[in-house]
Amino acid sequence: MSARDLLLGIDLGGSKILAGVVTADGKILSRAKTPTPFADGPDALRVALRDTSIEALKTAGAGRERLAGIGMGSPGPLDPEKGVILRTPNIAVANLAIGPWLERELGARVTLDNDVHMALYGESRAGAARGRKNVVGIWIGTGVGGAILRDGAIVHGSNRNAGELGHMILDARRASPGKPNGTLEWEASKTGIARHVRKKVKRGAKSKLARFVRGRSHGKGVAERLHSSDLAKAFFAGDRPAVEAVERSARYVGIAVANLFDVLAPDLFVLGGGVATAIGKDYLSLVRSVAGELAFSTELSPVRVALSRLGDDAGMLGAALAAGDRARG
Amino acid sequence: MSARDLLLGIDLGGSKILAGVVTADGKILSRAKTPTPFADGPDALRVALRDTSIEALKTAGAGRERLAGIGMGSPGPLDPEKGVILRTPNIAVANLAIGPWLERELGARVTLDNDVHMALYGESRAGAARGRKNVVGIWIGTGVGGAILRDGAIVHGSNRNAGELGHMILDARRASPGKPNGTLEWEASKTGIARHVRKKVKRGAKSKLARFVRGRSHGKGVAERLHSSDLAKAFFAGDRPAVEAVERSARYVGIAVANLFDVLAPDLFVLGGGVATAIGKDYLSLVRSVAGELAFSTELSPVRVALSRLGDDAGMLGAALAAGDRARG
Repeated sequence: MSARDLLLGIDLGGSKILAGVVTADGKILSRAKTPTPFADGPDALRVALRDTSIEALKTAGAGRERLAGIGMGSPGPLDPEKGVILRTPNIAVANLAIGPWLERELGARVTLDNDVHMALYGESRAGAARGRKNVVGIWIGTGVGGAILRDGAIVHGSNRNAGELGHMILDARRASPGKPNGTLEWEASKTGIARHVRKKVKRGAKSKLARFVRGRSHGKGVAERLHSSDLAKAFFAGDRPAVEAVERSARYVGIAVANLFDVLAPDLFVLGGGVATAIGKDYLSLVRSVAGELAFSTELSPVRVALSRLGDDAGMLGAALAAGDRARG
Repeated sequence: MSARDLLLGIDLGGSKILAGVVTADGKILSRAKTPTPFADGPDALRVALRDTSIEALKTAGAGRERLAGIGMGSPGPLDPEKGVILRTPNIAVANLAIGPWLERELGARVTLDNDVHMALYGESRAGAARGRKNVVGIWIGTGVGGAILRDGAIVHGSNRNAGELGHMILDARRASPGKPNGTLEWEASKTGIARHVRKKVKRGAKSKLARFVRGRSHGKGVAERLHSSDLAKAFFAGDRPAVEAVERSARYVGIAVANLFDVLAPDLFVLGGGVATAIGKDYLSLVRSVAGELAFSTELSPVRVALSRLGDDAGMLGAALAAGDRARG
């Protein structure tokens, strides 16, 4: 008789779906990947999520009867209790009750949470934040997402969607109702970086990134064409607009770290997402230096900042382990 | 035989010490008040704290043998575990082990915490936040202090001094190492308000507050001469520089509320301190309106903001009740 001894983790991103089969103690047995059908509506998305999961199970040589639980990270806002994606900025679905649906299709309970929440939880169990109980995560990619762990558990807040760090306003003079201007995401995200490079190029600066940042100044288009790996290449080659834009991004992240250090005094900050991961240690040093200079309470304890260690696996693994916690009650 | 059935609360402020005797269920039996000897060093401060406490006990007709616990709120940074005031911006003491000293003098255990932490705890037990478990407090006075309650308990963070909301940087372009420019406190505090009025007066604007804001542009001097009651009088009389400065203060507090709503999603924000209390409902409406417009997650739940209800008693009462919790174990 085969026990329900395995977990399935799913990370739903704007460009790809990653599913993996994971043991109770966090060993990854298999991975399966599919491009996200972001423009094709709810049916296509549901089927892609199910089929990627089934592929991961096959690769692991395991049937669905062995699943103790399924965890899924998704962009939000979400209703994690009901397993519903309320809407997402980059995927054409709304009020999608994906949790209950996958539960019927795959025969195990689904734990749904914000993608960055799941990634930070993964880091706290098996990555950069292992053994840390009070942690803040900032994920810098196409947008900027966040997560807060307190006493080892994800902070959800009264509306179940706490941790929206990217929406913090850091430039009060630019803030305006309904607009993203002046927020952390506006300045620090890959979208913000692309916008900054584009502005410099328009003013006559030369940049290896010029061909990626033409066209619309904001929105999915620009950031999608500019991959983090191209950005990193230009940054390390000393491409001036790229260097300036990355430094600017890291400065805003550093200010956010300083602010949240004074507000929450966590043990550790973890930086993840495409931009932070691609630039790596240089990005980390910039953030550390700004945060260390600007935080008020550094006389009491140092500001600790680390890079994500699990990379692309963080969200999938964190989701699987969160599902495991729930299965054990 | 008389049981240890009473609590003593002490609120140490930059200008006055308030002590009170309180029953276990939060009834205030007596109050005693003394000007804070802020410039006279540790001995004078210790004696003033002890003598004000003894006066409060006398007025309540109670001997110190009836004290189950003593709570004290103080400006920080502090070491709450050891009962030490590390330093304070406005009182000339450093590394003052006031907890152990008062314990010896008054014969009951001392619970020391940040003044705004104690005030918000008071509000959560007997004031504006009664029944709320996840609450953020912003106290706008000479400076801006803050506090966070999670699951009904004060959040201390890993360095025991979380909640320094006044140090959040909201104007990234003005932020500079070691300077308060661009912080919430810089813009929203009474000191910031005085600075703003002073600038307008210097440029030729007429203001009823002109005589209060002459002299140094920053520091204790200006904010001490400008009392919140005078500010409120000018505001309600339509004094232009006063109205602008108050609106500006409320706008920054509104942005801080929006940011912390997206980060923590608390049930409620409570505004206290001299400025918020003196301007009252008009200040509250301004903050509510800015926060409601600028917070991202308002589609999920409304931003709730209320004014402190306990006024000057909040810190003293909260300190007494926190000491009571500890006495009960």
